[in-house]
Amino acid sequence: MGARPVTFLSDYGYDDEFAGVCRAVIARIAPDALVIDLTHGIERHAVVRGAAVLANALPYAPAGIHLAVVDPGVGSPRRAVAVRTATEDRILVGPDNGLLWPAIERLGGAVEAADVSLSTFRLEPLSATFHGRDIFAPVAAHLARGASLAESGEDIDGESLTRIASPQPVIESGRVVAHVVSVDRFGNAALDLADRHLPETGLRLGRPLEIETAGTTRPAVFALTFADVPDGGLILYENSYGSLALALNRGDAATDLGLEPEAEVVLRPAD
Amino acid sequence: MGARPVTFLSDYGYDDEFAGVCRAVIARIAPDALVIDLTHGIERHAVVRGAAVLANALPYAPAGIHLAVVDPGVGSPRRAVAVRTATEDRILVGPDNGLLWPAIERLGGAVEAADVSLSTFRLEPLSATFHGRDIFAPVAAHLARGASLAESGEDIDGESLTRIASPQPVIESGRVVAHVVSVDRFGNAALDLADRHLPETGLRLGRPLEIETAGTTRPAVFALTFADVPDGGLILYENSYGSLALALNRGDAATDLGLEPEAEVVLRPAD
Amino acid sequence: MGARPVTFLSDYGYDDEFAGVCRAVIARIAPDALVIDLTHGIERHAVVRGAAVLANALPYAPAGIHLAVVDPGVGSPRRAVAVRTATEDRILVGPDNGLLWPAIERLGGAVEAADVSLSTFRLEPLSATFHGRDIFAPVAAHLARGASLAESGEDIDGESLTRIASPQPVIESGRVVAHVVSVDRFGNAALDLADRHLPETGLRLGRPLEIETAGTTRPAVFALTFADVPDGGLILYENSYGSLALALNRGDAATDLGLEPEAEVVLRPAD
Repeated sequence: MGARPVTFLSDYGYDDEFAGVCRAVIARIAPDALVIDLTHGIERHAVVRGAAVLANALPYAPAGIHLAVVDPGVGSPRRAVAVRTATEDRILVGPDNGLLWPAIERLGGAVEAADVSLSTFRLEPLSATFHGRDIFAPVAAHLARGASLAESGEDIDGESLTRIASPQPVIESGRVVAHVVSVDRFGNAALDLADRHLPETGLRLGRPLEIETAGTTRPAVFALTFADVPDGGLILYENSYGSLALALNRGDAATDLGLEPEAEVVLRPAD
Repeated sequence: MGARPVTFLSDYGYDDEFAGVCRAVIARIAPDALVIDLTHGIERHAVVRGAAVLANALPYAPAGIHLAVVDPGVGSPRRAVAVRTATEDRILVGPDNGLLWPAIERLGGAVEAADVSLSTFRLEPLSATFHGRDIFAPVAAHLARGASLAESGEDIDGESLTRIASPQPVIESGRVVAHVVSVDRFGNAALDLADRHLPETGLRLGRPLEIETAGTTRPAVFALTFADVPDGGLILYENSYGSLALALNRGDAATDLGLEPEAEVVLRPAD
Repeated sequence: MGARPVTFLSDYGYDDEFAGVCRAVIARIAPDALVIDLTHGIERHAVVRGAAVLANALPYAPAGIHLAVVDPGVGSPRRAVAVRTATEDRILVGPDNGLLWPAIERLGGAVEAADVSLSTFRLEPLSATFHGRDIFAPVAAHLARGASLAESGEDIDGESLTRIASPQPVIESGRVVAHVVSVDRFGNAALDLADRHLPETGLRLGRPLEIETAGTTRPAVFALTFADVPDGGLILYENSYGSLALALNRGDAATDLGLEPEAEVVLRPAD
């Protein structure tokens, strides 16, 4: 019986060898584990962004060990944890700084958790600054080979895990004040707004609206997909993870509208 | 008998999780398939460039399933297709926008093709904007596991596949007007010119020539390799895919000469 | 019995398909070899930097075939080599330009070496400019499948391998003149200074010091980890590979202090 698959997400980037060395560590311990890099392009120290990407991506990944490292507090007393989720027997491994929380919630909550900061699976000597290599990767690899959470660290209460609040839109009469959650390579900007918020907003599929960003108001259409508007047209649409998002058909909405994470976007029905 | 290997090329970049999520989807369906990332660094929406890279790379890859996604028309009525090639029983999967065509031609042409837009292998709910995840990756994974084209979609005529014209040099008396096809990380610029064009041009290996770009003319040598000229020397050479290309030995020709894709380059024998 | 694992490091970057095509070549020859990308983000032609990263990373990787390509001299008469190390039966494959040397030293020295420039494992036709694809990757793949060094090329004397000198700090009375060896994504700058240099310097853990860079002197602390100073505080610390390094807690030391590879840094005890 082979090792479980391991997914891996981090803010290590691609210029350095950090992610590669973690993969090397996993390969030494669990040579037959399939390692799937989700991305290492999370912006440096962007815990909230990493958390959102992880929660969006994991439902598409095979159940296994899910390693995630965005860890501005490395070397501080923040805990290193491994957490088993209620659905599909998935195990998430990473720093206890909120990075894992939205994914844990989406996967039914934590049914078992361990503090692996002092795991016997750690590499020695332990560095103060590269816990991806020295703690998270070896713990994930041993879990992939079938080690139990009890073997990997000290049992802790799942209720004690650090949580992060998701941003929330403000819905007022005649307008919605939303925020940019993330911007992708194509310049599409996901908002903290989803279908479930819509009934109170007056925004409706197929109907025109106004988008105000950085003091400028532009007309847009709430459409199903890019091709529903002419090239360069601004649309509000439901993106592939179920969030509402802004895009310019074959253009770059983030650059043209000056959208960055946390930017405020006001949406108003135009009719 | 294991799954066939899958190669994967896209314009998804590395900052986002798009390519990683597609790999995750493949791993759920075909966990034993070897997935080889060719590159995800194709410029956004650069169908012609992606097509050239794919055609150049596939002959070096094991025969298998060849997934390629550069898809500015996602959400429009463009077809999603799977195409079996005449040589080596390779199957290409991607949007029918010309991206696959040069590779299909190089691999002997299409002997079977299917429209997989409505494939039963699609993920549900189908997003309007991320067909890599919802159509192309799962179709590729099922094909890797041995599904037939007939099972993956509707049979279509290979003659109906979208083709793209390759750029062509203009060969005149005493000069060649070529175009930059691509620029690599090292600043080397591939032209739409190959050995077969040379007899009519007067350009000969080992002989000096003049290169005119953006109104400036520079001396160069038609040489075998970088080391045939001094550091900083400009050479015309046959690159590793059989195209003629411009380089500065240990320098960056693209930056120094202002070469970008589609830029015009005039070459003249200097003697 | 399966193939040995292959690690792969290069300066090919991610925008082009170079690294992917090398992986494709390996997969054709040794389909069951696990290939671990250490990084392809080494700065273009940065042999010294690539050599340092390789030497730091390999002890964490499973023993196998270690492919490394940073090769400004491709096409010149520099040799292509495969080298067996004294410890763990590792085999390094790459250009003989010093790139492999620090790793070979760290792994106990060379016990067998071959010039593979004319290897029968080469791909034909051999390009003049892409030896990663045409020489290094296929040689590495055949070695992963169990070919001997004798089969892969001509036996050469390990003593003849090209060496590169590591940068060295200058230790004077009351000050140390060190140099930046590398800067990572987080802006942390590794110096050519290690614990073993410290006794003569007066620098001691937990004690304040002064850091002079580009004519500006700043206070710092020699600490164990980032969290030992306030946000924005400058620290000297031992990084995860045992080098002393500069960092700003949750900041970017390289940008703020103008640190680039080879930059001079003067350190003085402050008390």
